[in-house]
Amino acid sequence: MTTYWLQHAWLGAGPVEENVLVTVDGDRFVDVVPGVAAPPATATRLSGLTVPGLANCHSHAFHRALRGRTQAERGTFWTWREQMYGLAGRLDPDRYRRLASAVYAEMAAAGITTVGEFHYLHHGDEGTPYDDPNAMGEALVGAARDADLRITLLDTCYLAAGINQPPDETQQRFSDGSAKQWAERVDALRTRHGDDAGVAVGAAVHSVRAVPRDEIGTVAEWAARHEAPLHVHLSEQVAENTACVEAYGVTPARLLHESGALGPRTSAVHATHLTDDDVALLGGSGTHACFCPTTERDLADGIGPSRELAEAGSPLTLGSDSHAVIDLFEEMRAVELDERLRSQQRGHWRAEELLVAATSAGHTSLGFPDAGVIAPGAWADLVTLDDASPRTAGTGGGPEMAVFAATSADVVHVLASGRVVRTDGVGPDLARVIGELT
Amino acid sequence: MTTYWLQHAWLGAGPVEENVLVTVDGDRFVDVVPGVAAPPATATRLSGLTVPGLANCHSHAFHRALRGRTQAERGTFWTWREQMYGLAGRLDPDRYRRLASAVYAEMAAAGITTVGEFHYLHHGDEGTPYDDPNAMGEALVGAARDADLRITLLDTCYLAAGINQPPDETQQRFSDGSAKQWAERVDALRTRHGDDAGVAVGAAVHSVRAVPRDEIGTVAEWAARHEAPLHVHLSEQVAENTACVEAYGVTPARLLHESGALGPRTSAVHATHLTDDDVALLGGSGTHACFCPTTERDLADGIGPSRELAEAGSPLTLGSDSHAVIDLFEEMRAVELDERLRSQQRGHWRAEELLVAATSAGHTSLGFPDAGVIAPGAWADLVTLDDASPRTAGTGGGPEMAVFAATSADVVHVLASGRVVRTDGVGPDLARVIGELT
Repeated sequence: MTTYWLQHAWLGAGPVEENVLVTVDGDRFVDVVPGVAAPPATATRLSGLTVPGLANCHSHAFHRALRGRTQAERGTFWTWREQMYGLAGRLDPDRYRRLASAVYAEMAAAGITTVGEFHYLHHGDEGTPYDDPNAMGEALVGAARDADLRITLLDTCYLAAGINQPPDETQQRFSDGSAKQWAERVDALRTRHGDDAGVAVGAAVHSVRAVPRDEIGTVAEWAARHEAPLHVHLSEQVAENTACVEAYGVTPARLLHESGALGPRTSAVHATHLTDDDVALLGGSGTHACFCPTTERDLADGIGPSRELAEAGSPLTLGSDSHAVIDLFEEMRAVELDERLRSQQRGHWRAEELLVAATSAGHTSLGFPDAGVIAPGAWADLVTLDDASPRTAGTGGGPEMAVFAATSADVVHVLASGRVVRTDGVGPDLARVIGELT
Repeated sequence: MTTYWLQHAWLGAGPVEENVLVTVDGDRFVDVVPGVAAPPATATRLSGLTVPGLANCHSHAFHRALRGRTQAERGTFWTWREQMYGLAGRLDPDRYRRLASAVYAEMAAAGITTVGEFHYLHHGDEGTPYDDPNAMGEALVGAARDADLRITLLDTCYLAAGINQPPDETQQRFSDGSAKQWAERVDALRTRHGDDAGVAVGAAVHSVRAVPRDEIGTVAEWAARHEAPLHVHLSEQVAENTACVEAYGVTPARLLHESGALGPRTSAVHATHLTDDDVALLGGSGTHACFCPTTERDLADGIGPSRELAEAGSPLTLGSDSHAVIDLFEEMRAVELDERLRSQQRGHWRAEELLVAATSAGHTSLGFPDAGVIAPGAWADLVTLDDASPRTAGTGGGPEMAVFAATSADVVHVLASGRVVRTDGVGPDLARVIGELT
């Protein structure tokens, strides 16, 4: 048993509590008691504001190596993708493990306790499987362990370059040939990690561009059979919508609906360019809406209808996606601030709602419904923010401080699954491993 | 004479230079030599990327006390203003000095070496002048000295609550009664600081709402006579444009043009909601366009036409305005990223152009044309960024690192006017002084 005494804490709902004594047994909380004026001498005192562990619901770990580098020349989403594919071509399981370990360490130090890794870089050159066809997925699972993160490996079905277009040379490494073959490979991975408490294996449909209509249902069925999370890139770019309507006569959201791919275990990632009918389908099915605002800014995607989706029934979750930035505090406020730019009105999201998106809602969408709150029985995650940094000082100390003033640099202590996370050496490790790749 | 040896440095133009030996005499650079492999043992070594000092061209220092606090309830620009006025009512010269000292220390630690303070809180209760009618301005000048910042005090003419509306109770503290009386007061302040090298006194027209048409010319003439900077809030909100067109039959930009208030010494702050004619007037006159993107997000102002203004001839400058955030790196990238959201295209601003906006262009707009570059004769400012932090590691180390990856938390050393800036205790000072006010 280990005890922590939290000066101020937002436990996952309700007001900020004072002097909270928390008892941890292994990887779980067993006792959480506010108002303990005199803690035991053995308790670790955490000053500042403590919040639950954050869930980063959409990650492409290897994109971190592109941070800052795709900004040197003007370009479109598609030229960015070209650079990203060049990088992918240089990755094998060993390099992927080293890169992802360093990236996940950056996440952990920023208060992220679970990552949802949208993983499609499966195979070797020309699409030849590695000796272990799940070698690349195992690299990511191992990287998460290195960094003391939990992981939901969203193993991604990626079969086509576009609707009715075969995969190109890079994309051959992503493809399993068919959704059936994808499912066979992922079954093996899931079986192998069935007893690993901090590892979940879920599914993803890359997009309606990359998975033909008659294959989407196979992935959805796999996820339903295993009661596993199912994630999908949805309507990030107008071009995707145009291609889908031209080929199938329906929007991507309706195509997913018709394929049985929507529902409370599903997360629609981006959900930027939607019709009213799309919003109704997503909300009505309880599909999560996973917004990635710093990436959506970076890639010039546009601003999605976050509030409309929430009102319709889609819980908001958040991801750092391309890792142009790894800072879920910035993602939280960006949802509200970008909506202000879109609407020229303030006050769409309360700070507490954005914290729920980044903590309990995010964890639920990744298949960890028992994480993202500070409560007995939940995963023992604690993220402590300095409330007297140049950024946070004088801001009142409440949820608004976390959402509207703090940054990842203000995270001073992280407990993830009961373990104190390493925060030193994160930058130098990233510099070394990215230096080897670029 | 003091020497610094910069591992990597962007000097204000051109490529990043290596191993730059810099010699400082008093508050100026006297020698700048790249490629010095073996520096003298007495040189202070600054690892990472060093850039020139940053100019924060639009500041309302006291708004810092509202950070995080105006987010608790939904509200409009106008309810935000109500909270801001409540705070203003609690300030006198002593409290203002203490608050501004702490805020300017936050700026200095974030690499800002000159602040343009848009100052309109002039008088005591009911508009009664203090014994020294410039006591509040002197509080700001003193605060800048406390923090080792240079200051351009943009003493602001503020006469009306709106077009043809007398000032309300709070606004009585802002008003000098007429532009002529404003000019007399500011003449005294300018004379007093004529020999202070790090202090400039300029002018501001609060807005076309707050200064009647027939008074704007008086302020513009004062600025012209003294060759002083002239700043003005311009078209931040659609409501301002509507009121101006209704009252005068012209847009705010055209009203300023007709009043002789545009030109290269002028900065139009925000410049958000502009007609093509407005852009042509601003650009054609060489008026600076001072964008404050983090405040414009926070207040739901909208996204101004930054690139169109630059193409028309208006140099871009940057300000942190309400200090929802004090991080000019965030302001730099926000110009590009918000434009991406607006246009759904990438690549409007190169990183070097945004650095120029934050350094030399900004300093020029504040009346310090000999600052914002690392060159002999210029003000001796050096801002050093950690290039191996969790945020900056592996990003290539160039201007793109500063603009698209770094934050104020990555500023590890600041030299301002030849003096090493204090960085410890910034947060606790802010917490204490804001605690006294709220």
